[in-house]
Amino acid sequence: MIHKINDPREVVNFSAWPAMLPYECLKELQENLLNFKDTCCSILEISHRSKEYMELNTETQELFREVLGIPKNYKILFAHGWASTQFANIASNLPGKQGYLITGDFSERAYKEAIKVKGAFVWERDVYEVANGKNSNFSQVPSSEEILDWLQEDSRYLHLTDNNTIFGTTLFQLPETQVPIIADMTSSLLSREIEVEKYGIIYAGFQKNIAPAGTAVVIMREDIYEQLEEKLPAMYSYKTLVDIDSLYNTPSTLNVYVSNLVLKWVQKLWWLEAVEKLSRKKSGLLYDVIDRSNSFYNNPVQKSARSLTNVVFTLNSSELEKKFLEEASEHWLVSLKGHKKVGGIRASIYISMSYEHVKRLADFMEKFQKENS
Amino acid sequence: MIHKINDPREVVNFSAWPAMLPYECLKELQENLLNFKDTCCSILEISHRSKEYMELNTETQELFREVLGIPKNYKILFAHGWASTQFANIASNLPGKQGYLITGDFSERAYKEAIKVKGAFVWERDVYEVANGKNSNFSQVPSSEEILDWLQEDSRYLHLTDNNTIFGTTLFQLPETQVPIIADMTSSLLSREIEVEKYGIIYAGFQKNIAPAGTAVVIMREDIYEQLEEKLPAMYSYKTLVDIDSLYNTPSTLNVYVSNLVLKWVQKLWWLEAVEKLSRKKSGLLYDVIDRSNSFYNNPVQKSARSLTNVVFTLNSSELEKKFLEEASEHWLVSLKGHKKVGGIRASIYISMSYEHVKRLADFMEKFQKENS
Repeated sequence: MIHKINDPREVVNFSAWPAMLPYECLKELQENLLNFKDTCCSILEISHRSKEYMELNTETQELFREVLGIPKNYKILFAHGWASTQFANIASNLPGKQGYLITGDFSERAYKEAIKVKGAFVWERDVYEVANGKNSNFSQVPSSEEILDWLQEDSRYLHLTDNNTIFGTTLFQLPETQVPIIADMTSSLLSREIEVEKYGIIYAGFQKNIAPAGTAVVIMREDIYEQLEEKLPAMYSYKTLVDIDSLYNTPSTLNVYVSNLVLKWVQKLWWLEAVEKLSRKKSGLLYDVIDRSNSFYNNPVQKSARSLTNVVFTLNSSELEKKFLEEASEHWLVSLKGHKKVGGIRASIYISMSYEHVKRLADFMEKFQKENS
Repeated sequence: MIHKINDPREVVNFSAWPAMLPYECLKELQENLLNFKDTCCSILEISHRSKEYMELNTETQELFREVLGIPKNYKILFAHGWASTQFANIASNLPGKQGYLITGDFSERAYKEAIKVKGAFVWERDVYEVANGKNSNFSQVPSSEEILDWLQEDSRYLHLTDNNTIFGTTLFQLPETQVPIIADMTSSLLSREIEVEKYGIIYAGFQKNIAPAGTAVVIMREDIYEQLEEKLPAMYSYKTLVDIDSLYNTPSTLNVYVSNLVLKWVQKLWWLEAVEKLSRKKSGLLYDVIDRSNSFYNNPVQKSARSLTNVVFTLNSSELEKKFLEEASEHWLVSLKGHKKVGGIRASIYISMSYEHVKRLADFMEKFQKENS
């Protein structure tokens, strides 16, 4: 029988993207939707040149700086578009020898976009794979030594995907290299502490940990900015965005506003050190159930690369997986189906998801195992 | 003394972009913000692959088709980005001889982006100006004969901006030509009836008449689609978007949802014939005050090109304009300052603005003239 819920928020949405947002932030947005900062305009209507929006823009950049510990020599942009848009933008804004670490589906997409940019733009490029985890079905990530073996020292950059949502892996350790590292952190930014100074560029689409879809935060070291290609169309160009403080044209005002609310929520409740602890505790709950299950549940990932935000596992038959998904849904645990490329189950547990939410899934997994062993 | 308002919606926001949205639609969004279509997820959180969102995507395309009378041989895309993004995308997706009609600031921006695309992409292009209204300070639009005189018949397309927000002009009459016409209708779509079949592509950023910023609707004739450049990076390519029904990656789900509400609001209240009548009535109110003012107010625009959505005017000194803006603001008539390129006053009166809103401005203008003549 389906458990009747009293509050719609009892439904736990494990979707990989877009994903849950903090309830408190959504409530605040709802309350203020018709009147942003006493302007009597909605945040959806307000001019991006208004004093109130310009303040929000600056304040939100500073919140990113504080929460992530971003040094002063990094620019913070609210770039139009998604991580996918940045795939093309990075390759087109930074011609030269471009190394791509392939650890999953999205890193491969970034690589393929760079190949397309190479074919479409006039500036010389040489795009190459630094390593490709396809042979291990992306269940591992390469070690720093392996990366350094393949990385060509005269590369303009090394592009990598920090966390692989489909395969449930994370590259926790970075190689020590002079080549600037560019990291897509769409599915992991804000979920753990990072050393920003180890990266040339960090970027993240908003739609997982931060805010609704349609904007990306791009954190760029100044020396990278100074060498950006200049002659690109304005909307493909990072230089345009940096030079005009992310206000070349109308930004997604709502997205910046929601990211502001989410960052304040992180600041108020936890700060990043505590968020990381919670991320480890939440993912640990699920990995523990899997590891104690005597192979009733299986996680194919090398233990040191297990993602804190996307926990993937399989059961021993597709019938059993189907039954699992159906019964989970009856318990209001939804969007747990694994990506179509790999099947199985996937629980995406980004920062908005509470420990209690994940505990409900862990408890359900134990109950399901008992009833089906 | 400042008139005290009882309801924040008494403030009338004449901002050119972003702009007012219909109050009814904002209220509906607010009510449903935490629970989209009984999914118990916010529209900001829901998966774009969910049944509920896919239905919204299709339904909204069909609403555009019905409301604008779009024939079956046109594709309807929800493109990532803004009109500005389409400037670059159109030039890069359609190599060849590209003609640009320059009737104001945004049409010039589109032209300049095409020049940049020409320099950055490998495919051959020849970008030229079909006509340029700079000499008349953009107070006129060229006649069909003038356009045809300059248009080269072997052009891949003729790009034009339907309505010029900064200069307050509209190109109501199209030239009869075999060259596909591509029109930026960001500030005029939905404000009057149009014959879609006269265009190869119509596009419009959402943030004026339709919904919040960050998405553009692109209406594309099939023969144009069939000849799109194929080898572009996915996020710069219209072909990617068309082939996957605007769902290549996470769309701005909120923007599509709000556009759906706005189109239903148009459908319920008026349909487009009535909207056009209202647009003419609203702009007529202001033009009448200007024309009757014995040059107290001046609109520099050739009468046949007067915009229905952006009414610009000047007063006889900058001091008087400053006083006008201050007193208007005390009457809660805000965001009336003209664009910095031209100065003066600008009232942007898109579809969400009611007759009563505009009447308040017209009444204020008459009162101000009496008190200052």
